[in-house]
Amino acid sequence: MVYGALDIGGTKIAGALVDADGRLVARAQRATPARDSANVLMGAVSAVLDDLSRHAQWPALSCLGIASAGPVDTVAGTVSPVNIPGWRGYPLVEKVRSHPRVPVGMRPVLVGDAVAMTAAEHWTGAARGVDNALCMVVSTGVGGGLILNGSLHAGISGNAGHIGHISVDMNGPLCPCGARGCVEGFASGTAIAAHALASGWTPPPGEAPTAAAVEAAARGGDERALAAYDRAGRALAAGIAATIALVELDVVVIGGGVAQAGETLFGPLRRRIDEYAVLDFTRNVPIVPAGLALDAGLIGAAAAGAAEAGLSRAGRARVPVPRP
Amino acid sequence: MVYGALDIGGTKIAGALVDADGRLVARAQRATPARDSANVLMGAVSAVLDDLSRHAQWPALSCLGIASAGPVDTVAGTVSPVNIPGWRGYPLVEKVRSHPRVPVGMRPVLVGDAVAMTAAEHWTGAARGVDNALCMVVSTGVGGGLILNGSLHAGISGNAGHIGHISVDMNGPLCPCGARGCVEGFASGTAIAAHALASGWTPPPGEAPTAAAVEAAARGGDERALAAYDRAGRALAAGIAATIALVELDVVVIGGGVAQAGETLFGPLRRRIDEYAVLDFTRNVPIVPAGLALDAGLIGAAAAGAAEAGLSRAGRARVPVPRP
Repeated sequence: MVYGALDIGGTKIAGALVDADGRLVARAQRATPARDSANVLMGAVSAVLDDLSRHAQWPALSCLGIASAGPVDTVAGTVSPVNIPGWRGYPLVEKVRSHPRVPVGMRPVLVGDAVAMTAAEHWTGAARGVDNALCMVVSTGVGGGLILNGSLHAGISGNAGHIGHISVDMNGPLCPCGARGCVEGFASGTAIAAHALASGWTPPPGEAPTAAAVEAAARGGDERALAAYDRAGRALAAGIAATIALVELDVVVIGGGVAQAGETLFGPLRRRIDEYAVLDFTRNVPIVPAGLALDAGLIGAAAAGAAEAGLSRAGRARVPVPRP
Repeated sequence: MVYGALDIGGTKIAGALVDADGRLVARAQRATPARDSANVLMGAVSAVLDDLSRHAQWPALSCLGIASAGPVDTVAGTVSPVNIPGWRGYPLVEKVRSHPRVPVGMRPVLVGDAVAMTAAEHWTGAARGVDNALCMVVSTGVGGGLILNGSLHAGISGNAGHIGHISVDMNGPLCPCGARGCVEGFASGTAIAAHALASGWTPPPGEAPTAAAVEAAARGGDERALAAYDRAGRALAAGIAATIALVELDVVVIGGGVAQAGETLFGPLRRRIDEYAVLDFTRNVPIVPAGLALDAGLIGAAAAGAAEAGLSRAGRARVPVPRP
């Protein structure tokens, strides 16, 4: 028995067959033709499925999960990834279901990418065995997902855990989403680099002004770079503390490119969390790096698909699916 | 079969027998001797239990729930109500369990007062039949509770839904809890009155500067009073929008003294929510007044006790209890 997985991102479309212990048995990938038409995009997905279907284990396929860059609508089975303009309300689930090599009667399960990462961390990563967790991706954007009472809490439309767009500064800067003071506006890689630049930091000659370049400067003691990471840490702390107060957590897991900064990010975050998580029941929740890096989306898609199909080894995820 | 309920507050200690439809069959009450010793306080609880135990239906008692002003520790079975200084870590559950008229083997279930209100609204109030709800009390303080996936989500220690102490202004005013910019610091009755006073509003001669007095002034068009309610509405909107983004909700229910202001509070709140709940899946969640007023704590305590005892008519609440 293997679990099928697809992971749709702005740069690559990946697929895998995953065993019951969360290990990849087979893997396939295409570059995302992100500026192309809906059909060309679907062609890349089909090519990945074709590749997987040639693997010896394909006949043992027992379920199929799909992780996608958001927004997604898991009930309608549609995706509208911000960085893939050719897909707006695209019926990805139906298209995958009707792929000629997908077994008749198999119902693919769709989850957002941050929810997939959460399912993966709960299955085989840093949230393994934990009943209540917030898992976050801090990268170009900030996303998240929740494990509550031992199960994935995907929410009514599959978008729960959306910590990047909660306001921690209700009078703060306007976010592209339309709200003010969203966590993402302080803590994303883009926001960190923009804040460092605005305060006078410049990258070394010939280097791009990325969050990684700011991190290198912070390690060298640059005050403006340190301040940018402290501001990110404070916004993350306020958002995480709010989440703890609202649902109670055993652990917070953080992955994504910006989290690669290690102590440059985790240091200020751990100091700042003590300023916001002050009620007894909110204190001392561990904040740890993600356990999985590569292929978390694929592993999480497999976990969600397997859980929805009632194959309980893959965590006890529960995701909303269309009513038949 | 009747469900037993106790509701411990700073001004009164109430008890009730509640039928399987959520109606009070019997009720008893004592004033809370809030400044007295732990034993005197417990004496008032015992007197309420004595009164209830004289009712003809007492022998049909099938469970016993306790709602208490917080903080509570539902796992330890202890309470430390802010306004009852004689009880700090007081083992209320054990004391009630060993009351001579409480049947041997009955295990009382403790919940915080806002969680109890949430269980009550889910059972017979404005969140009846709803799978995902935030229920709030906006009063001297701001509290809340969550219904997720059709069940009460009380959290690891029974304190989930603590929306009053999430930060919506991470650089904002220091809250007595120790954090900054908590919702309660903008939206409680105390905060509304303080803000109106600070901006130059004064109550009519002989009247106290309460939120109700500010509300009367707001109805009369006083700009400073209107601004105080708008500020409260904005903070509530940011906090509610954050909760929707984190867990996804079908409805938000608001009760408590400040919510009695009606449109003076709900008007700005509904306008402001559109500024913060901007992502598709967060839009247009109804915000409605509580369906229960009197005795919501008793009804919710009964609901929690009944649910924990597996008596499913009383909603599908699930609360953390001590491991035997």
